[in-house]
Amino acid sequence: MKTYLSGWESLCASSTALRFIDINLRGIGQVMFQDNPLSGALFFAAIVWGSIAAGVPQVAICGAIAVVVATLAARVLRVDDASLRAGLYGFNGVLVGLALATFIAPGPLLWLYVVLGAAVSVVAMSATANALKALGVPTLTFPFVLVTWLLLLATYGFAGLGGNSLPAADVVGPYEQVASVQLGVGDFLQAALFSISQVFLKASVVAALLFLAGLAVNSVAAAVAAVGGAFLAVVTAHLLGAESDLITGGLLGFSPVLTAVALGTVFHPPGWRVAAYAALGTVFTVIAQAAFNVALTPFAIPALTGPFVLVTWIFLLPRQSFDRASP
Amino acid sequence: MKTYLSGWESLCASSTALRFIDINLRGIGQVMFQDNPLSGALFFAAIVWGSIAAGVPQVAICGAIAVVVATLAARVLRVDDASLRAGLYGFNGVLVGLALATFIAPGPLLWLYVVLGAAVSVVAMSATANALKALGVPTLTFPFVLVTWLLLLATYGFAGLGGNSLPAADVVGPYEQVASVQLGVGDFLQAALFSISQVFLKASVVAALLFLAGLAVNSVAAAVAAVGGAFLAVVTAHLLGAESDLITGGLLGFSPVLTAVALGTVFHPPGWRVAAYAALGTVFTVIAQAAFNVALTPFAIPALTGPFVLVTWIFLLPRQSFDRASP
Amino acid sequence: MKTYLSGWESLCASSTALRFIDINLRGIGQVMFQDNPLSGALFFAAIVWGSIAAGVPQVAICGAIAVVVATLAARVLRVDDASLRAGLYGFNGVLVGLALATFIAPGPLLWLYVVLGAAVSVVAMSATANALKALGVPTLTFPFVLVTWLLLLATYGFAGLGGNSLPAADVVGPYEQVASVQLGVGDFLQAALFSISQVFLKASVVAALLFLAGLAVNSVAAAVAAVGGAFLAVVTAHLLGAESDLITGGLLGFSPVLTAVALGTVFHPPGWRVAAYAALGTVFTVIAQAAFNVALTPFAIPALTGPFVLVTWIFLLPRQSFDRASP
Repeated sequence: MKTYLSGWESLCASSTALRFIDINLRGIGQVMFQDNPLSGALFFAAIVWGSIAAGVPQVAICGAIAVVVATLAARVLRVDDASLRAGLYGFNGVLVGLALATFIAPGPLLWLYVVLGAAVSVVAMSATANALKALGVPTLTFPFVLVTWLLLLATYGFAGLGGNSLPAADVVGPYEQVASVQLGVGDFLQAALFSISQVFLKASVVAALLFLAGLAVNSVAAAVAAVGGAFLAVVTAHLLGAESDLITGGLLGFSPVLTAVALGTVFHPPGWRVAAYAALGTVFTVIAQAAFNVALTPFAIPALTGPFVLVTWIFLLPRQSFDRASP
Repeated sequence: MKTYLSGWESLCASSTALRFIDINLRGIGQVMFQDNPLSGALFFAAIVWGSIAAGVPQVAICGAIAVVVATLAARVLRVDDASLRAGLYGFNGVLVGLALATFIAPGPLLWLYVVLGAAVSVVAMSATANALKALGVPTLTFPFVLVTWLLLLATYGFAGLGGNSLPAADVVGPYEQVASVQLGVGDFLQAALFSISQVFLKASVVAALLFLAGLAVNSVAAAVAAVGGAFLAVVTAHLLGAESDLITGGLLGFSPVLTAVALGTVFHPPGWRVAAYAALGTVFTVIAQAAFNVALTPFAIPALTGPFVLVTWIFLLPRQSFDRASP
Repeated sequence: MKTYLSGWESLCASSTALRFIDINLRGIGQVMFQDNPLSGALFFAAIVWGSIAAGVPQVAICGAIAVVVATLAARVLRVDDASLRAGLYGFNGVLVGLALATFIAPGPLLWLYVVLGAAVSVVAMSATANALKALGVPTLTFPFVLVTWLLLLATYGFAGLGGNSLPAADVVGPYEQVASVQLGVGDFLQAALFSISQVFLKASVVAALLFLAGLAVNSVAAAVAAVGGAFLAVVTAHLLGAESDLITGGLLGFSPVLTAVALGTVFHPPGWRVAAYAALGTVFTVIAQAAFNVALTPFAIPALTGPFVLVTWIFLLPRQSFDRASP
C-alpha cells in the first residue's frame, strides 16, 4: 500500500493535473479525517454507489462539483499551501454539495447554489480556522454546517429553490410513541452501518463497507472507532427510547460516529482512558443529536453534523492530557 | 465563625473523606459564588427543605448525586486542584441534577441522565474555562445551561424520558393580558424571596431565608445584593407589565439576583458606581429573562440561568475599571 | 469641503457643546462607517425626512435621544477617548432608538426602553470590542442587533410594551408563490434605493438620496459600493425567486448594502480582487438575509442587520490579503 501511495505521490509531484486530483481526493478523505487519496477515492466510490442506488445520481455529481469548486476557490484565495494539499479546504465543500443536492430538488438554481456554497465554504473554513487558532481546536465540519444551514433556510424564502426532502416544520411537542418495533440483530447491524454511511448522507450497506474500507486503508484504529461508535450510538439511542425508524436509518448515529473517530483516534493517542473519554463523548453526541433534531423542528432544517461539532469541541477544549495516563 | 471554619479546614486536611465533603459543599456554595462549606451546607439545607416541602424529595437527592458525580469526574479528569478544592467543578453539576429532577418525571433513566449530565458538566466547565481564559471572564453557569438545555431538548426525542413539568411549546404570540392582579406588599415580599430561592429552582420562603443565611455567613454584601437585586427585579418586571404569576413565583427574578450578586459584589469592589452599574445590569437581566422566555417558547424548554450568563458576560467583558472612580 | 470640516473641527476644539454635537453626528455617520460629522448630519436629515414622510416622527426623535444617551453613557463609563470621538460608541445607540421606535407602539415605556437600550448598547459595544480584539475583526452592528433582539423579544412578555409593527410568528413553511409581479426598471430602481434607506429602517427615495450624499461627501467609493451592492442584491434576490414585495421594499437589500460598503471600501483597499470578494459576500448576504428571515419566523422579530454582521465577519476573519494582488 505504502509503495503504491509513494508512487502516486511522485506522479502528483510531476503533474499539476494529478496533484489537483490528489487534493480533491484528500478533501473527500478529510470528511472523516483521512489525509489519504486512496481513502478519498473509496469514499467517493461509496458516494457514487449510494447515490445511484438511491436513484439520485445528481447528489454524487454535486459532491464532485463542490469539492472541485472549493479547491479552485482555495487556490484563488491563496490559502496556506500545506493545508490545501492536505485536503483541509475540500471536505466542507464536498459535504455542502452532497447536502444541497440531497435536500433540494434538481433544477438550474441548484447548480448555482452548489457552486456558491462550495466557494463560500472555503471562506468560512478560513474564517473558522482563524477564529479558533488561539483556542487550539480544529474547525471540524462547522463551516459546512453553518453555510448549509443558511442555504437551506433561505430556500423557504425563494421560489427558485425548494424540495420535498426537507423535514416539515412544527412546534416542539411531547414524544409520541410510534408503533414500537422490537429491533433484532439485523436491525442493529443495519443501524450501525447506516450510521457510518449517513456521515455522507447515504443509507446504504455497500456504501458503509466502502467507507470502512476507506478508513481502514489509512487507519485501522479509525475504522474500529467508527464501528464501535456506531454500535454504542445505536444501543444508547435504543435504551433511551428513540424512534426505531431514526435508529435503523442511521440518523441518530452519524454524528456520534464522527465523535468516536475524532476523540478516539485523531486528536488523542489511542489507549483505554482515551477510549473511555471518547465513549462518554459519543454517548453525549447521541443526546445532542436528539436535542438538535428537536431544536431544529421549528426551522424545518436537518441537524447535519452540528451535534458532532458541538460535542467534540466541548471534549477537545479542555485539552485533556492523556500522556500521564500511560505509566 | 472564622474559628469554626479554620477548625473544619484542619479536620479536612487530615481526612480524605472530610475533604471530599468539603469540596462538595463548596461546590454547592459556588452556585452563588460562595467558596465556603458552611454556605454550601446552608444552601443544601434549603434545597432539602424546598424539595420536601414541594413533595419532590428526588430533586434534592438528584442534586446531591450530581455534585458528588461531578467532583469524582473532576478527579478522574485531573482538573486543576485549586479550582477543584474551591468547588468550581461542582456548582454546574448540582444545578444539572436539580434541573433534570425538576423537569423530568422520576424513573430509572432519570438517574442515568443525572449521572451523565453531571459528568459532562465537568468537561463542559473545563472547556468553557479554557475558551474564556483569554477574555478574562468567568464561566458563570454557562456549562450548566448548555448541558441541561441539550438534555431537556433531547427528552422530546426519547420515550424513556419525559415529564409534565416542561413548558408547552407554542409559537410566539402577542402579549395576552391575563386577569390583572393588583400586587400588595405581601406579594412583593414573596416575589423577592422566591426570586432568591428560584436560583436553586425552589419556590419557598424558608428556603429563601436559608439561602440568604448561607450568603450572609460568607459575605454580608452578597446577601444585601441578593435582596436588593430581587426587589429591583420585581419592581422592574411589574412596571413593564409582566404577568403577575411569573413575578410572584420568582420566575423573572432569579437571573437578575445572580447578576446583582456577581456584578455588585463578586467581580467588582463595592461602591456607589459599582452599585449603579450592577443595577443597570440587573434591570437589563429582567428584560433578557423575558426575552429568553419568549425565544424558548417554540422549544418548550426553560431559560434556566441563561439570561444571567449573557448579561453578566456583557457587563464583565468591558473590564470596566472602578478604581479610578473612588477619589 | 475639507476647509469647512477643518473649520468645524477648530470650533469643536474650543467648545464642549459643539464637540458633543460633533461626536453625536459622527455616531450617526458610523452606522455606514463614515467618521465625518457632515455625513452624520446628512444621514440625520434623511432619518428626519423618512420619519416625517412615513408619519412616524417619534422614530427620528427616538433616534436622536438614543445617540445622545449613548454618548453620555460612554462618557460616564470612561471608554477610550479616540473611539468615542470617532463616533464608535454612538452608531449602535442610534440604531437601537430607530428600531425600537419603528417596531414598538408609542407610549411612556417606549421612551424608557430607548434610554435603557441606548445605555446598554454602549456596554455591549465595549464588551464586543474586547471580545473580538484578539480576532482582529470589528464589532460592526452586533451590539445593536443583540440588544434590540432582546428588547423586542421581551415585549411579548410585557403588557406595557407592544406594537403591531412586529412580524407575526409562525412555523416555517414551504415557500408560497404570491401573486407573481413582473418587476420593471422603475421597480428595480426603487428596490435598490430602498435597500440603501432601509439601513436606517426607512423606505424613502429622498432619504436614500440623502444617505448617498452623506456617503459621497466622505467617500465616493462608499457611495459607489452602496449603489452597486444594492443593485447586485436586488438582482440576486429576484433571480432566486424572492417575494417581490420584499425586494421592492428594500428588505432583502439593506444588509447586503452594508456588506458591500464594508468589504469593498472600509476594511480592504479598493481594487478588482476586492470588488470580486465583496460581490461574493454581498450575494451571500442576500441568502443570509432570507435565511435569517426564515429562522426568526417562530420568534416574530426582524432580522435587523444580523445577516450583514455574520457574513461580513465570515469574510473578514480570513484576513484575506489583497496587497499581493496588485502587481
